[in-house]
Amino acid sequence: MAKPAYHHGNLRDALLAAAIEILEAEGLSALTLRAVARRVGVSQTAPYRHFEGKEALLAAVAAEGFRRKHQIQLNYANAAPDTGKFRAAGKGYVAFGQENPELLKLMFGAVIRDWSQYPELVAASRVNYDGLLAAAAAALPEGSLVPAETVASAAWSLVHGLTLLLVDGQITPERAGAVDQDALVDQVLNMLGGPPPKT
Amino acid sequence: MAKPAYHHGNLRDALLAAAIEILEAEGLSALTLRAVARRVGVSQTAPYRHFEGKEALLAAVAAEGFRRKHQIQLNYANAAPDTGKFRAAGKGYVAFGQENPELLKLMFGAVIRDWSQYPELVAASRVNYDGLLAAAAAALPEGSLVPAETVASAAWSLVHGLTLLLVDGQITPERAGAVDQDALVDQVLNMLGGPPPKT
Repeated sequence: MAKPAYHHGNLRDALLAAAIEILEAEGLSALTLRAVARRVGVSQTAPYRHFEGKEALLAAVAAEGFRRKHQIQLNYANAAPDTGKFRAAGKGYVAFGQENPELLKLMFGAVIRDWSQYPELVAASRVNYDGLLAAAAAALPEGSLVPAETVASAAWSLVHGLTLLLVDGQITPERAGAVDQDALVDQVLNMLGGPPPKT
Repeated sequence: MAKPAYHHGNLRDALLAAAIEILEAEGLSALTLRAVARRVGVSQTAPYRHFEGKEALLAAVAAEGFRRKHQIQLNYANAAPDTGKFRAAGKGYVAFGQENPELLKLMFGAVIRDWSQYPELVAASRVNYDGLLAAAAAALPEGSLVPAETVASAAWSLVHGLTLLLVDGQITPERAGAVDQDALVDQVLNMLGGPPPKT
């Protein structure tokens, strides 16, 4: 039933790519197995070869989101000098979220109720988290008493909150006292471990 | 049509309180003018005396959310010693979000498209933000070169991200290397202006 372009072996990837396009363009409510099949140009039953149902599709989309986010964060970190890799990975997080706001919300929202049913999602999320933890450990000063897990949680909270507040228009360069958005992100990231407030 | 309990002057408050209860118990999709009327025990047309339609109701609910969050943050700050008020306000943010996760998402999500149509929402959000800005300014060390707006944006990002990642089960005390959730929140809040990472 599949069109020749989607021969055995890449239909699943094509379905996931189409699902992410639909999600970003039309929102979560428009993301159905039927819509994905239509976009890829396969029969309505074809997606069921790969996904049991709607939630399984969403879990696979979220897993693909974690893989893409991890790769973007790696790319940002790899392009940065040794002394800037941790912050660069944070900028990669923000960039991913701004390009894929609906995907980010799907990945972290409570749409998929029981992650333990989806080992692919657990694994992709774990790889991304382990990357964060390793980067946090590498960024800690020698002899630091703060555990890497704490730095990781704080950095994650900071970039996650910043991304959502930017995406939803709550924080703007103007409101944050920055000349533009890139400067804003730099300034906020610098506050992690920046000058301590008095109180 | 209203029951005697809701005499002139407090129907709007009763409708907002009922709306928030429905939102937290059943989610955004269950929040309709009809459901709110039913919960308060008034006629289905009664809510239209106060809200033009669904979006106007949501905007008023979000405004009430900002007022409640602001009050909780003030309560936390007021109960803290002078040297801990800024962090205490952050703990108030997390506490509010954990008690009212759906309300927090409504307040900051993109559900209400054009805030400028709802002066009550703009005003309530502004009062809350101005409180953040004043607390950030008061927490800055004397002679700091970092503007209060930057500290405010970073602190907001940190507590907003932390709250959502806690609510959605992404960050847990175990994962963050903390003994319990209260310690986790303290440890993450301490990272704002805490020991600078090496890179």
